[in-house]
Amino acid sequence: MWSSAKRMVRPKIVLFGDSITEQAIRPNGWGVPLANAYSRRADVICRGYGGYTSSWAMFLLPQLFPLDSTEPPIATTIFFGANDAALLGRSSERQHVPIEEFKDNLRTFVLHLKECSPTMQIVIITPPPIYEEGRVAYAISAHGESASRIPERTNEVTGQYADACIEVAKEMCVWYINLWSKVQDTDGWQTKLLRDGLHLTTEGNTLVYEEVIKVLNEAGLSADSMSMDFPHHSKIDYKHPELAFQKND
Amino acid sequence: MWSSAKRMVRPKIVLFGDSITEQAIRPNGWGVPLANAYSRRADVICRGYGGYTSSWAMFLLPQLFPLDSTEPPIATTIFFGANDAALLGRSSERQHVPIEEFKDNLRTFVLHLKECSPTMQIVIITPPPIYEEGRVAYAISAHGESASRIPERTNEVTGQYADACIEVAKEMCVWYINLWSKVQDTDGWQTKLLRDGLHLTTEGNTLVYEEVIKVLNEAGLSADSMSMDFPHHSKIDYKHPELAFQKND
Repeated sequence: MWSSAKRMVRPKIVLFGDSITEQAIRPNGWGVPLANAYSRRADVICRGYGGYTSSWAMFLLPQLFPLDSTEPPIATTIFFGANDAALLGRSSERQHVPIEEFKDNLRTFVLHLKECSPTMQIVIITPPPIYEEGRVAYAISAHGESASRIPERTNEVTGQYADACIEVAKEMCVWYINLWSKVQDTDGWQTKLLRDGLHLTTEGNTLVYEEVIKVLNEAGLSADSMSMDFPHHSKIDYKHPELAFQKND
Repeated sequence: MWSSAKRMVRPKIVLFGDSITEQAIRPNGWGVPLANAYSRRADVICRGYGGYTSSWAMFLLPQLFPLDSTEPPIATTIFFGANDAALLGRSSERQHVPIEEFKDNLRTFVLHLKECSPTMQIVIITPPPIYEEGRVAYAISAHGESASRIPERTNEVTGQYADACIEVAKEMCVWYINLWSKVQDTDGWQTKLLRDGLHLTTEGNTLVYEEVIKVLNEAGLSADSMSMDFPHHSKIDYKHPELAFQKND
């Protein structure tokens, strides 16, 4: 594995999504403990794009996941829907994606990733629920008293987008996390797990991390099952260090 | 920049070093705010190897930084010396690297990285100081009362390795951070910035982050000066989203 002939390339786990993924690498984000869990085993790479819908993300797909890559990710999380579920006729209507188009986009993502690598583990994460009062309060804090008192998203409609994620995941035999439902299992989720009615608090990030690592473990990608890149220092014979680096597999 | 002809590849900043670098991606580590600072601009990639000396890291060099890479890092931190400075005749003597060999190793690292990419910004970070009582206390906590009361490293000798880093950095015209000295500028650094006489506390990690980002900014690699990968969502015309992805530079 560490011979000069075969180059050791560390596997990649890619987080593909909207702002909830972009914020995964903030110090309290869900990507941080994930990257640490795979320390020296896999690189966790953030490809989150705040405000993006699945339709806009479609333009990124060939760039982020080139089909001719010799090093495709071993796993990818697909985490869209929060923006797509914005309602027509409300303040974020430019982000609205009809639910059938959303489902088609998810299918395209999965097919593209499978084409990149048939063995890639794919995890669709549903959008979290919406706490509508939290969204209105956020709008007022951001835009002042003139902000609309009608939330741009509702929990009910976002739930339909969450269902769509699960439907596509089942149809295409990929993993999924029903975050919309899991978040609502916690008492006080509205402010305990969400900070503005949509984005995650530290506790909400912890929940996502725990769910993602659980699925990756189930998918056979536990960190423990993966080899560390290069030997542990205790395995190096200090008189003959070269021996530790001559392993062939 | 986002045309299909030219693939957009996000630049990489690589952290190369020993355990203090391996721990940079722990939730309180110095790599976490760094990765966040370069969100959507550069990937911060951790290549830290606990317990490794600069001599053992030499075996990793061609694998981690292949000369034929078409995407070499735009910046690399080199952060060794803490293990190399372990003293002969004490409990970690297997990690001891004579100071002249340490300097030669650093020179080889720099030359190799420059060969990878002549424009790569290289930052040598000196080892932090040693709080000798903290090392002994740590040894007792780890190995019990039978542990040696003589620390395996001294602050004085580690200071010589820090000086060696600075000498090589100046000689080879690369950036450096005198962490050995900067840590000791803080009152109570012994336990405020170090948790076991050697590794960093949360505050110590913050100091390293601040120093690294300061140097990267001076080196012309401030996040603000780098373009975000793909347009901000507010720039996307929702009726003609394709227009936002057709820019050519």
